[in-house]
Amino acid sequence: MARTVAVVADRIAWEERRLIEAGPAQGLSVDWVNDESLCLGAADTTALHGYDAVLVRSRSYTRGGLVATLAEAAGLPVLNSARAINACENKALLRTVLRTAGIPVPDFRLVLSRKDFAKALQELGTPVVLKPIFGGMGKRVTLIRDSDIAHSVYDYVEDLGHAFEQACLVEPFLAGGSSVRCLVVGRELVGAAEFATAGTDWRNNAALGNHSSALAHDPDVVKIVDAVVGELGAGIYGIDLFRTGDGYVVNEVNHAPGFRAVAGATGVDIPAAVAAYVQELLA
Amino acid sequence: MARTVAVVADRIAWEERRLIEAGPAQGLSVDWVNDESLCLGAADTTALHGYDAVLVRSRSYTRGGLVATLAEAAGLPVLNSARAINACENKALLRTVLRTAGIPVPDFRLVLSRKDFAKALQELGTPVVLKPIFGGMGKRVTLIRDSDIAHSVYDYVEDLGHAFEQACLVEPFLAGGSSVRCLVVGRELVGAAEFATAGTDWRNNAALGNHSSALAHDPDVVKIVDAVVGELGAGIYGIDLFRTGDGYVVNEVNHAPGFRAVAGATGVDIPAAVAAYVQELLA
Amino acid sequence: MARTVAVVADRIAWEERRLIEAGPAQGLSVDWVNDESLCLGAADTTALHGYDAVLVRSRSYTRGGLVATLAEAAGLPVLNSARAINACENKALLRTVLRTAGIPVPDFRLVLSRKDFAKALQELGTPVVLKPIFGGMGKRVTLIRDSDIAHSVYDYVEDLGHAFEQACLVEPFLAGGSSVRCLVVGRELVGAAEFATAGTDWRNNAALGNHSSALAHDPDVVKIVDAVVGELGAGIYGIDLFRTGDGYVVNEVNHAPGFRAVAGATGVDIPAAVAAYVQELLA
Amino acid sequence: MARTVAVVADRIAWEERRLIEAGPAQGLSVDWVNDESLCLGAADTTALHGYDAVLVRSRSYTRGGLVATLAEAAGLPVLNSARAINACENKALLRTVLRTAGIPVPDFRLVLSRKDFAKALQELGTPVVLKPIFGGMGKRVTLIRDSDIAHSVYDYVEDLGHAFEQACLVEPFLAGGSSVRCLVVGRELVGAAEFATAGTDWRNNAALGNHSSALAHDPDVVKIVDAVVGELGAGIYGIDLFRTGDGYVVNEVNHAPGFRAVAGATGVDIPAAVAAYVQELLA
Repeated sequence: MARTVAVVADRIAWEERRLIEAGPAQGLSVDWVNDESLCLGAADTTALHGYDAVLVRSRSYTRGGLVATLAEAAGLPVLNSARAINACENKALLRTVLRTAGIPVPDFRLVLSRKDFAKALQELGTPVVLKPIFGGMGKRVTLIRDSDIAHSVYDYVEDLGHAFEQACLVEPFLAGGSSVRCLVVGRELVGAAEFATAGTDWRNNAALGNHSSALAHDPDVVKIVDAVVGELGAGIYGIDLFRTGDGYVVNEVNHAPGFRAVAGATGVDIPAAVAAYVQELLA
Repeated sequence: MARTVAVVADRIAWEERRLIEAGPAQGLSVDWVNDESLCLGAADTTALHGYDAVLVRSRSYTRGGLVATLAEAAGLPVLNSARAINACENKALLRTVLRTAGIPVPDFRLVLSRKDFAKALQELGTPVVLKPIFGGMGKRVTLIRDSDIAHSVYDYVEDLGHAFEQACLVEPFLAGGSSVRCLVVGRELVGAAEFATAGTDWRNNAALGNHSSALAHDPDVVKIVDAVVGELGAGIYGIDLFRTGDGYVVNEVNHAPGFRAVAGATGVDIPAAVAAYVQELLA
Repeated sequence: MARTVAVVADRIAWEERRLIEAGPAQGLSVDWVNDESLCLGAADTTALHGYDAVLVRSRSYTRGGLVATLAEAAGLPVLNSARAINACENKALLRTVLRTAGIPVPDFRLVLSRKDFAKALQELGTPVVLKPIFGGMGKRVTLIRDSDIAHSVYDYVEDLGHAFEQACLVEPFLAGGSSVRCLVVGRELVGAAEFATAGTDWRNNAALGNHSSALAHDPDVVKIVDAVVGELGAGIYGIDLFRTGDGYVVNEVNHAPGFRAVAGATGVDIPAAVAAYVQELLA
Repeated sequence: MARTVAVVADRIAWEERRLIEAGPAQGLSVDWVNDESLCLGAADTTALHGYDAVLVRSRSYTRGGLVATLAEAAGLPVLNSARAINACENKALLRTVLRTAGIPVPDFRLVLSRKDFAKALQELGTPVVLKPIFGGMGKRVTLIRDSDIAHSVYDYVEDLGHAFEQACLVEPFLAGGSSVRCLVVGRELVGAAEFATAGTDWRNNAALGNHSSALAHDPDVVKIVDAVVGELGAGIYGIDLFRTGDGYVVNEVNHAPGFRAVAGATGVDIPAAVAAYVQELLA
């Protein structure tokens, strides 16, 4: 009989559709479970009761960790682990965990107030990138080229009103580089693609739809990806690397990665790889 | 017996202190009344009952108009009028009222959504200035030099969450100009000072503490100020003009103006002028 | 040739669909124009250029007044007038305008801070109703039966973060009453229906889907409706009355009213009445 | 030579003042370090460099965990541990961690959407308590006695705008009980006091200033407190217990507890106990 997997997400997007379709070939029955109507907490966690595994793909940067925490506590196998999701949802924590493990990350400053922000600008100089600690899809990630607009932008941060939204990182702008998006399933790097800056727009990640091209497997990439997985544990990750003069640094790790662009660029069947990994986990 | 005046404000700052001190010489007893504990609405409007006049100096860009509306309805003489305050608190309304009256204002676009914003950028080109329709003290007024950061900044607008906060104007950046701050009491221009851009910072208004120098009375200034007062009615205003190649345009009218910088630059005793005007009004 | 009418709204709901369909029989061509992509402000107000009239039906409680202000300034006939929309969008202003005109409204207090709120509770006692000054669809309108939860609810008001959202009215709870929704087109009351409290839920307005029944035309209703229209000017209004021991009071006036429930309860063809009124206006 | 301790907090309140004063007698030099100007992140974490220990007392429910994470990564002894602070800052995580360890906590539902909220009301029935997952000082903790106001209150949750602020717990209201506040230093319960409901107000925690009375040490209290400390690790905690018909349950654990009320009720010199514990830790 087929094992059942709950894909917990706010909606069925391209990735969830592919995961649902890929299940049967691996002996899995995969359902979408709306992350808005779980109401977890009861001892028997009704909405997820009876599933053999839970795949957390909430795009919200708050729901994933909370859902994984409660689902794990209910004894369910959960991908990714609550610990990994919590690290990925919090860019300050992620950088700290990785740096402590000796993995290269961009320099950064933790900015919780305008005083912090002024100090960070002074220490790092312009250009810098301001980014929310909690957030995704490149939202509110802002390149600050000129110090005279920095404080106008920070006015917006202050007016966001809530402390979590105000928590930011400021980091040096790594100009001219390209970014490499690596897709990990389990402990294996199943695909990687490079996203180069298109023209004059400084943003170059996949979510923004820029040009992508296939990337040959590279020992430097493999090494850094292995180290990240070693630290966060096996799971499904989108690991974004920046190429710098001193080699790669880990910019971000996404715990519910989009994989359409990497699948397209590499031809790898990522949903099949995920389904096979879940089956292996449940064996 | 002295007439009593309520200065309604969130706190006693430099301006309120001077107004309270200037009262007695004009036969006025001036009190500060906290705009946070008025609880207006009852037929007898308790907190303002017994005052001969009300001077609204709420720095909040929502309280002034509401307080003035209810105080006028209770039959009190109110400075400025609710109609004038409402126009000054709403930059889109102010520009429209002035432009309709034939008074020069900067070109602008009303931006209520990202679609509006994209259209405004396309129509006006960069650089533009993005500013909140409801807001003061130069907060969140942002120069956008490069189109690749425009949408990052707009991410913040979207995340402000509430419709009033999201309502913006986009306008062409009037580069290299200086700004002239005019202080009006009643219908008279009692003082004016120029604030020039200091160095590389594009912001040049008094609230940001830039260099100021005395401005000789100028028929072009007087003419435009008279027209604004003709439209909004007599009152106490800080009128900000931009000097452009085609003459002055009205950037902003402040209904609860700071006047320390203009007083310092011109030597005019503004609190005495205000007190004399209130006395004249009550005569 | 058909006159053209722009129905400015965020989407085509039941009402907009009916208005578009009702046009041709009255010689009108009615288009939906998305209120998110107007980008008004240029001298020629591109997006509305060429229309003979504008019908503002933005559900947002900020867009309507801004759009009407700029469309009027561009010389277009606009329904409702910017002045009427501004009054309807601001519950404190509306009550003040009506009360000043001698029209009965519920007692209320203007609450801009926790101090105001505490004072309002003390003056009015429980139960009271707390409602946002700017808002619609009954959202955040809260019955406070017990003073020990009042301050917990006010914690939420404070955490809304932005001044317009925090501005509230507090009013006595008019228990046990029913509400009468009146539909006005031009200066005429074209339909009215009563909405009675269903069971134990204190909310009884149409937007919440309660039971409705036809109401015979009543001289007391006609008189109060005429007075409201006399004050706000001809237009299209949903006027909500509360029936109290002392007769009707005006609870709310909606400038972009839903009319499905009243149309259903009365059999009146409201879209045809609107189209006929627009045609008459343009004649 | 005295060891130096940084007390990281937003301000010097009663507790911080007492900690600073208690240091010298234990050979400690205790400084207040403003949590708004740390700008942590650089390899040498400038603002905390040179301190022998860090005591995190940020009242903000976001700063503590971030600051502790970066300070620990910089190799500093930090009280409490980042892991403990993160658990205390997140009420859903805390309950899950404790329940998984077999420690009694109130039943609860995780509410991330209106659908969750409706489901929680249905499963638990009224009265329930709605509380933010991230938050302190009893703010926004609301007793919902009547289901007809539940959705009005949830309107406010939705309008908070940001996902972290919207994340709530719903739990059964444990009526008529009293609460016991326990102060832990290291692994020892140094003081406990009971806070009984005063009159008709349902809130009874110390932060709200209710009546307090001394509590004799109770084996049931000691057992549950030991279990909490066993799970979170040694540190400085305020542990709130509810007394129910089935014994105590852990309502909340505060990682930067106020201790004035417990100190007053018990006569225990809590600052001296803290200083002694820090000294012991550094020995």
